[in-house]
Amino acid sequence: MALPRSPLAPEGAPRLPAIDGARLATRACGIKYRGRSDVCLMAFDPGTTIAGMFTRSKTASAPVDWCRRALKGGRARAVVVNSGNANAFTGRLGEDSTAAVARAAAAALGCQPREVFLASTGVIGEPLPHDRILKAMAGLKAGLKPAGWSAAARTIMTTDTFAKTATRTAEIGGRRVTVNGIAKGAGMIAPDMATMLCFAATDAKLPQALLQRLLERATRRSFNCITVDGDTSTSDTVLLAATGKARHPRVPAVCRLDDPLIRDFARALDDLMMDLAHQVARDGEGAQKFVAITVSGAASAAAARRIGLAIANSPLVKTAIAGEDANWGRIVMAVGKAGERADRDRLRIAIGGIELAREGRRVDGYDEGPIARHMKGREIDIAVDVGVGRGRATVWTCDLTHGYVDINSDYRT
Amino acid sequence: MALPRSPLAPEGAPRLPAIDGARLATRACGIKYRGRSDVCLMAFDPGTTIAGMFTRSKTASAPVDWCRRALKGGRARAVVVNSGNANAFTGRLGEDSTAAVARAAAAALGCQPREVFLASTGVIGEPLPHDRILKAMAGLKAGLKPAGWSAAARTIMTTDTFAKTATRTAEIGGRRVTVNGIAKGAGMIAPDMATMLCFAATDAKLPQALLQRLLERATRRSFNCITVDGDTSTSDTVLLAATGKARHPRVPAVCRLDDPLIRDFARALDDLMMDLAHQVARDGEGAQKFVAITVSGAASAAAARRIGLAIANSPLVKTAIAGEDANWGRIVMAVGKAGERADRDRLRIAIGGIELAREGRRVDGYDEGPIARHMKGREIDIAVDVGVGRGRATVWTCDLTHGYVDINSDYRT
Repeated sequence: MALPRSPLAPEGAPRLPAIDGARLATRACGIKYRGRSDVCLMAFDPGTTIAGMFTRSKTASAPVDWCRRALKGGRARAVVVNSGNANAFTGRLGEDSTAAVARAAAAALGCQPREVFLASTGVIGEPLPHDRILKAMAGLKAGLKPAGWSAAARTIMTTDTFAKTATRTAEIGGRRVTVNGIAKGAGMIAPDMATMLCFAATDAKLPQALLQRLLERATRRSFNCITVDGDTSTSDTVLLAATGKARHPRVPAVCRLDDPLIRDFARALDDLMMDLAHQVARDGEGAQKFVAITVSGAASAAAARRIGLAIANSPLVKTAIAGEDANWGRIVMAVGKAGERADRDRLRIAIGGIELAREGRRVDGYDEGPIARHMKGREIDIAVDVGVGRGRATVWTCDLTHGYVDINSDYRT
Repeated sequence: MALPRSPLAPEGAPRLPAIDGARLATRACGIKYRGRSDVCLMAFDPGTTIAGMFTRSKTASAPVDWCRRALKGGRARAVVVNSGNANAFTGRLGEDSTAAVARAAAAALGCQPREVFLASTGVIGEPLPHDRILKAMAGLKAGLKPAGWSAAARTIMTTDTFAKTATRTAEIGGRRVTVNGIAKGAGMIAPDMATMLCFAATDAKLPQALLQRLLERATRRSFNCITVDGDTSTSDTVLLAATGKARHPRVPAVCRLDDPLIRDFARALDDLMMDLAHQVARDGEGAQKFVAITVSGAASAAAARRIGLAIANSPLVKTAIAGEDANWGRIVMAVGKAGERADRDRLRIAIGGIELAREGRRVDGYDEGPIARHMKGREIDIAVDVGVGRGRATVWTCDLTHGYVDINSDYRT
């Protein structure tokens, strides 16, 4: 099923530079798709540190289990990703597959299996035909090259309608470093074909503990603030490798994230992750509108985020947006169901910058014209103040359209 | 917008008998609709006790606030319900409206305003034109009669495609008692036109504290186990009045719910509420299939219910059902996202009674034929065992269809 490119996709795509110490290769292994590459090998030079964040699902996939264990070593020499099969809910066979792929990659690259990270995305419950990956390993190794980020981004796509790539530069102690990232996902979501995966690499030299803190902060503000349908994949994975090839002053393992030495890199990483996360939301299945929801006045930032996600995940809010209807009653409902403190009689709601509810009731005689025009656009902006505190967060989502129902009721058949 | 009757609606409708001590009247007040009744007055004889359950929304409507206060008295002489306007998010004006309607009903019936209960369902954020209800009060009072339950059920409809009524009889100490109920709702849901309301009355004589416990149990097993889209109304209200006209032995206020004296009534009430709750799920907006999801093997009954609701609220599960696709991978995903304990490697899933996953993986060679036929039917049965304990619950929902998107993206415009 070839879906048309999302109308919310960014125009053009950045050119990703090489990251010193990282090489990539892709290959068509016929895991499920025909006539396209579906396995990607990323190889890192010795000395590379790695950080990871994973799904909170209680039914996580075999590769997620593998990565969680491998992350304890904190070092990476390879990441192997396949599309077409999620290797989730595959029991012992799934574990065997992860071990076999990791061993093969380790043998090819001359490292330990625990230095190999894995991710799989695609159908769930079908055993992964890992022999096809093993057979391709020699070819993948032979094909490794410093370029190839865009090819890798295309290889990991499933229901995505465009490849998601981003790059940023930053300074650490006056030296320039680069960070590249690729992502896939067309829902937050879902065990079939829309898992969210993100792989990033930098040439900065960063101790693992610090890298992990940097990644956690960036993920919290980006991938953990987007939603398409509130569904959680068994396989969501974000990995960040640091090859350490850049010649900047040494960064200590214990270091505040706003330390002048690391601040610029932290900002660049946040920005890169945000860019990729927005691209995922912009490729939400059936999406016609990209929606930013800012919640202020909450008891805490976490409460604001939960209220924002309650709004963003409400089918009634999302269908109203699809219908270009500034239906703030449904926003009030969603605030109420979030379960967080909110003062109904101080609630304030603005759409497209125009306040249409204040002090717990409709603003009399607000001008519907500009709001109606805003609702017809591609980018929808909703601001809600719940009137109890200073907590603030922004989340991003898309509308719920007939396209979503089409894609998800037709997928397997 | 006249919607066709849900294909899942029950055939025919029961004939509701009179409840001694309860009278009803309906009236067209032009709150919003033209050419149909939109206000219902229920009047109860002195001595009637009342129990209530309300939305957990943090942005509850003015009538819900009113009822919560009135319930402290525990006595009811009237319930006034209007459709067309929810009197929610209307600030001080909303409170004034509830007080005015309660005072008018109290004056008409010769009781205290705190013995009057209120519910409103319809658009949110618009001041309730309560003067139209006040003007109709004399006519409503004059029209009160013991029959009229079906007319009342029609009066409280919004996007409902059929009126929801049910009746049961039970014995208390060898004497027959009757309980009638009416409900509305076409989502769990939602502040616009799909709030869930339920009003029941019995001629049994039951102390208020016991009545409340009975209602809480029945609601927990019924209305709290259905979902259409996971959205929570500002106005959900369930009220149960007991007129005490039946001549059965005295029921003590402190009494176990399985006491032989009350057991049969408790069963009948549970059954009545379940019937009405199922009717609401069967009228889910755009619903084409009625879905029962039974979760077993959970850490507790509450955990089982939460896992069941995670499955029932998953847009991916619901669209798969709409597509007649036995996509158990999405069920695994939903189990994982519920956040409750589940043993991935002992998970068991059956659809239409046929096990298709066991011990954490697909059952090899299961027969797809009967499952495919089951998925084409109107009634879908999903059973999931999460393999960690003995907690068990069943929840009910409907599929997510193009009809849902149509109804909810077109509603205001």
